[in-house]
Amino acid sequence: MKRLTTLFAAAALLVAGRLSAQEIQNFQRSAPLVSPELTATTITFRLRAPQATDVRVQPSWLGYGPEAAEAGKMTKGENGVWTKTFDRPASELYTYTFSVDGVSTLDPANIFVQRDGTRFMSAVLVDGGLGDLYKECDQAGNLEHVWYWSGTPGMNRRMYVYTPYGYDKNDKDKKYPVLYLLHGGGGDEDAWSTLGRTCQILDNLIARGEAVPMLVVMPNGNPTQRAAQTLMVPEKRDVPRGSSNFDNYASLPADIVPYIEANYNVIKDRSGRALAGLSMGGGQTFYTGFRHVDMFSSLGMFSSGLLGSLGSIGSFDAEKEMPGIYSNPAKYNKFDVIYISCGEQDERIKGNKDVVDQLRAKGYDVVWESCPGGHEWRVWRINLASFARKIFK
Amino acid sequence: MKRLTTLFAAAALLVAGRLSAQEIQNFQRSAPLVSPELTATTITFRLRAPQATDVRVQPSWLGYGPEAAEAGKMTKGENGVWTKTFDRPASELYTYTFSVDGVSTLDPANIFVQRDGTRFMSAVLVDGGLGDLYKECDQAGNLEHVWYWSGTPGMNRRMYVYTPYGYDKNDKDKKYPVLYLLHGGGGDEDAWSTLGRTCQILDNLIARGEAVPMLVVMPNGNPTQRAAQTLMVPEKRDVPRGSSNFDNYASLPADIVPYIEANYNVIKDRSGRALAGLSMGGGQTFYTGFRHVDMFSSLGMFSSGLLGSLGSIGSFDAEKEMPGIYSNPAKYNKFDVIYISCGEQDERIKGNKDVVDQLRAKGYDVVWESCPGGHEWRVWRINLASFARKIFK
Repeated sequence: MKRLTTLFAAAALLVAGRLSAQEIQNFQRSAPLVSPELTATTITFRLRAPQATDVRVQPSWLGYGPEAAEAGKMTKGENGVWTKTFDRPASELYTYTFSVDGVSTLDPANIFVQRDGTRFMSAVLVDGGLGDLYKECDQAGNLEHVWYWSGTPGMNRRMYVYTPYGYDKNDKDKKYPVLYLLHGGGGDEDAWSTLGRTCQILDNLIARGEAVPMLVVMPNGNPTQRAAQTLMVPEKRDVPRGSSNFDNYASLPADIVPYIEANYNVIKDRSGRALAGLSMGGGQTFYTGFRHVDMFSSLGMFSSGLLGSLGSIGSFDAEKEMPGIYSNPAKYNKFDVIYISCGEQDERIKGNKDVVDQLRAKGYDVVWESCPGGHEWRVWRINLASFARKIFK
Repeated sequence: MKRLTTLFAAAALLVAGRLSAQEIQNFQRSAPLVSPELTATTITFRLRAPQATDVRVQPSWLGYGPEAAEAGKMTKGENGVWTKTFDRPASELYTYTFSVDGVSTLDPANIFVQRDGTRFMSAVLVDGGLGDLYKECDQAGNLEHVWYWSGTPGMNRRMYVYTPYGYDKNDKDKKYPVLYLLHGGGGDEDAWSTLGRTCQILDNLIARGEAVPMLVVMPNGNPTQRAAQTLMVPEKRDVPRGSSNFDNYASLPADIVPYIEANYNVIKDRSGRALAGLSMGGGQTFYTGFRHVDMFSSLGMFSSGLLGSLGSIGSFDAEKEMPGIYSNPAKYNKFDVIYISCGEQDERIKGNKDVVDQLRAKGYDVVWESCPGGHEWRVWRINLASFARKIFK
């Protein structure tokens, strides 16, 4: 605000002809840049870096190889401002950083910053298509950062709970279904609501009538973590990890579902519970979902590495972990929706497709979806929207 | 995680003597840095920037002038890693950025990032004193991002609601008091819970028995904003602004207090309502609090510019806006706590002290506090903790 006020004051003095040449130069140097600037046909990035010798922009649509670094080279102009204009890319939510003499930086002109694991990136939403699903909807649901006692690992942990627009704490008669939504490796309880755009996707789908109003519960699935490391909470290192990450998801039926059902106006049987996750969370969904067939009515597994390995690597023995999954499918074949997806450029795709074939061969009705993309958020946002449209109907 | 795994694998190979010189060099280049590194007597910052010619660190305890820039100069060492070690500063929450050839960047080795208005900064908590109040407490309250209909400006708006550890939605018999807490100019509903450390301060004070369990409600006080601009929500530009910012706070008694009292287990009379704010929010507190003496029982005004101008500039006519505040103090002198504070290096201090004198001369019991610091968060965190200790007792 102070900067804007200064700018307007300087602009007024400029018009009044009361500034010296030096003052005008100072004013030009301090004028805030517009970056990124989106027009109907172009997108332009700008960074003021008069002392730098090599400045590049790395937008996510270019990818991350040496060719992308070359394509992102910016040109130095007046007042030390570096500029690069691209054709306007397809409607999407993109991330980008600048590289200034080899060091990655955010765009100081852009307040829209997103975190992916330990990295922070500037973001830009190109609207007019798919990206519209990721924009704030005027009918927005709430997001709660909830601490709950998790008896399974024995610690207070944080999860995020989305309640849809119109959810009324006081209206105990209106009951909502719940989607339990799990993050991937390197993620945490914050991931789905930031780069995953869960709140915006659900708000928009519900407002358009494409999904039913539902709660979305986003726990932290890292066995030793109480909460996202952005909170600087020391990890609980003495948590027994057992044989794998998936053991941790004993916590879901034991701690999380009971907490949600005690504290929210939700449907308390399997018809009102769905489970989905990406990557590690997709494996947790497969493992936990099939082992608790009486708890969840729909399962969504996005880009699962577990399924990816099942078909092509074979390190996980599904029949051993879920006895009868293939030999006695009637025991498990009770789901309304079994949804499996993977990006076309994700190396996990073959294994996931193999599992789809194996399940279908045993009579399971599996929805299989793929779309362009690797092991990345643009795929998982599409998966979430697609899965949310199908469940609780 | 992938990076850590790679590192451990490389370390194992190093120990086993299986890496070539080139491979060792690659490993050293990619090894993650520790920054900041805190010891009992020092703090060290590190940044890898082999191509850069001038790298500085700007920690908040140095201030922001040319001397600070000089004091922050880093030294280039092996592998292009720049380093700077300082004596360990007093226990506090500090922010810092790096300057790489004149461009400001975050510390890529540090996941603890905080926003102040439009700026993002790396942060470091130096514990062992005051800073301990700003650390996560194991008994943590929840934080809700709540959208509510604000009839006054006519739009859905977002506010944050903190509920203390142990707050139970289902226990309607247990009623909590509520602190309404307002941000300053350039801030928004997100400000108090990030750099303001509201959740951690309340969690720690309540756990220590120094404050009573209370809710804290943090609305957005910018008249045209629906929510923090990090959400990329278009501002509602047609909102009538009236004569000043303070008109907007018609929204507090008309929209916000009724919403909270309809949706939370709270005390519904003035004994259970306090109002406080920093800078612009301090002015809003003074204006709204005195005009609604039957609504709030305690007021906290931190570094208020309005009060700052009252005494020394005199642009705001308190007697005109609140008829009788000085001529008929019995009408207003019903508060349990009137708390006014300002940093010792804040230019607003004289005006604030003058108002304290004027109010005291009319018989108001005013708590006046000051501490080292300018117009900045380290002062307001101390003010919040101090005010929270005094209210609802």
